[in-house]
Amino acid sequence: MRRLKATISYDGTHFAGYQVQPGERTVQLEIESVLEKMHKGEKVRITASGRTDARVHATGQVIHFDTPLTIEPDRYKKALNVQLPRDIRVLEIEEVPNDFHARFSVSGKRYRYIWNCEEEQSPFRRHFSVETKGIQPDVEKMNEAAQYIVGTHDFSCFCAANTSVVDKVRTVYSLTFERHSDELHMVIEGNGFLYNMVRIIAGTLWEVGIGKREAVSLKEIVASKDRGKAGKTAPAHGLYLEKVFY
Amino acid sequence: MRRLKATISYDGTHFAGYQVQPGERTVQLEIESVLEKMHKGEKVRITASGRTDARVHATGQVIHFDTPLTIEPDRYKKALNVQLPRDIRVLEIEEVPNDFHARFSVSGKRYRYIWNCEEEQSPFRRHFSVETKGIQPDVEKMNEAAQYIVGTHDFSCFCAANTSVVDKVRTVYSLTFERHSDELHMVIEGNGFLYNMVRIIAGTLWEVGIGKREAVSLKEIVASKDRGKAGKTAPAHGLYLEKVFY
Repeated sequence: MRRLKATISYDGTHFAGYQVQPGERTVQLEIESVLEKMHKGEKVRITASGRTDARVHATGQVIHFDTPLTIEPDRYKKALNVQLPRDIRVLEIEEVPNDFHARFSVSGKRYRYIWNCEEEQSPFRRHFSVETKGIQPDVEKMNEAAQYIVGTHDFSCFCAANTSVVDKVRTVYSLTFERHSDELHMVIEGNGFLYNMVRIIAGTLWEVGIGKREAVSLKEIVASKDRGKAGKTAPAHGLYLEKVFY
Repeated sequence: MRRLKATISYDGTHFAGYQVQPGERTVQLEIESVLEKMHKGEKVRITASGRTDARVHATGQVIHFDTPLTIEPDRYKKALNVQLPRDIRVLEIEEVPNDFHARFSVSGKRYRYIWNCEEEQSPFRRHFSVETKGIQPDVEKMNEAAQYIVGTHDFSCFCAANTSVVDKVRTVYSLTFERHSDELHMVIEGNGFLYNMVRIIAGTLWEVGIGKREAVSLKEIVASKDRGKAGKTAPAHGLYLEKVFY
């Protein structure tokens, strides 16, 4: 048995999320089905760096799995891509030591959140960015607010209520904004993220950008550890898991 | 009654094409349904610059229609966009003289054809560009071949067999290639295009780009007026109607 690490990309639009759920089309299900065929009916369980929700995209999700097949990694990638549906692509496969674990070995992650600020959002971007209907937020204020988030904090304020995680201390390494023609991107890196954390941060900073909150209010929000103090959870289809660091 | 000209964009993926066909979801049907609601059940017929096929996209299709409503154009646009499905957007509406005709007044059109040359096509581009599976064509040769197409010719060689058009003389004003990171774009402008003409040109020039045909062979192909001499019709989902000139 050898362990393979695969970097994958998926368009989350038509998935009920990453993780297998009875009766739902999920990324994990599609990949495991193809692996099962490649292994003549034997189930192969894959492990990801973490789940993503319905409609959330990935340009650099990482999974690992163990396989007895001795196909060389690049041919393995091609064999998977031929059989996988077109909304999932394997970008890279490499052999890793058996103690590599896609989830437990993670040292950090980068997410991207995309708003489309065109007055009428292009139909080609409707599943891939969140429309602002022409609203141009004040990015300087969003940047100012972001400074209260960067660093090591108990991020309970940015964590969906329905979570079983106890330790909510995480470190955000960086939180920056980029303009790409009509789109505004929020790029966030950290050692780990709580459930819905990036989307709640995006939603809260958006409210700062449109003048609904003061930038400095983020200081209190973080200190409060109270989800009720933060803003709305931004829509899923603006979010991309971009890179997992090991 | 006043006549309005609307510039529209649509993601062709989930349409059976532009024109109404019984039992099919088409762009014309969706727009006319919304207009019918706005006109309290009265049918409003729209006229486009021309049809587009199933899965072909538009970033600048033009339609016209007559309406008794006196709503100002920008509010008209918003009213339409609120009710239209998200894969169609009205980009602009303006009032035009009653002798303006979206089809008969056309003086030229611009189309774009997009190939994606990544080894594994991004899942986000699968409906919006044609994958080459990493093949990088020789764009210089494609450019050379394109020179035999630019100008005024009988383009029977690039016209789908099932057409009733008699005069197949058209003028291609320009045919150029652009690189956009991993994608190759063919941009073509002319005074008019025969049925499937852009896709047959794209398919034929592609064959030049991958060495299946000589660039100079385009001279004979055009002169032959024989569809059988040209290459395959390139897939629909790489094609965009970008601009209509009046």
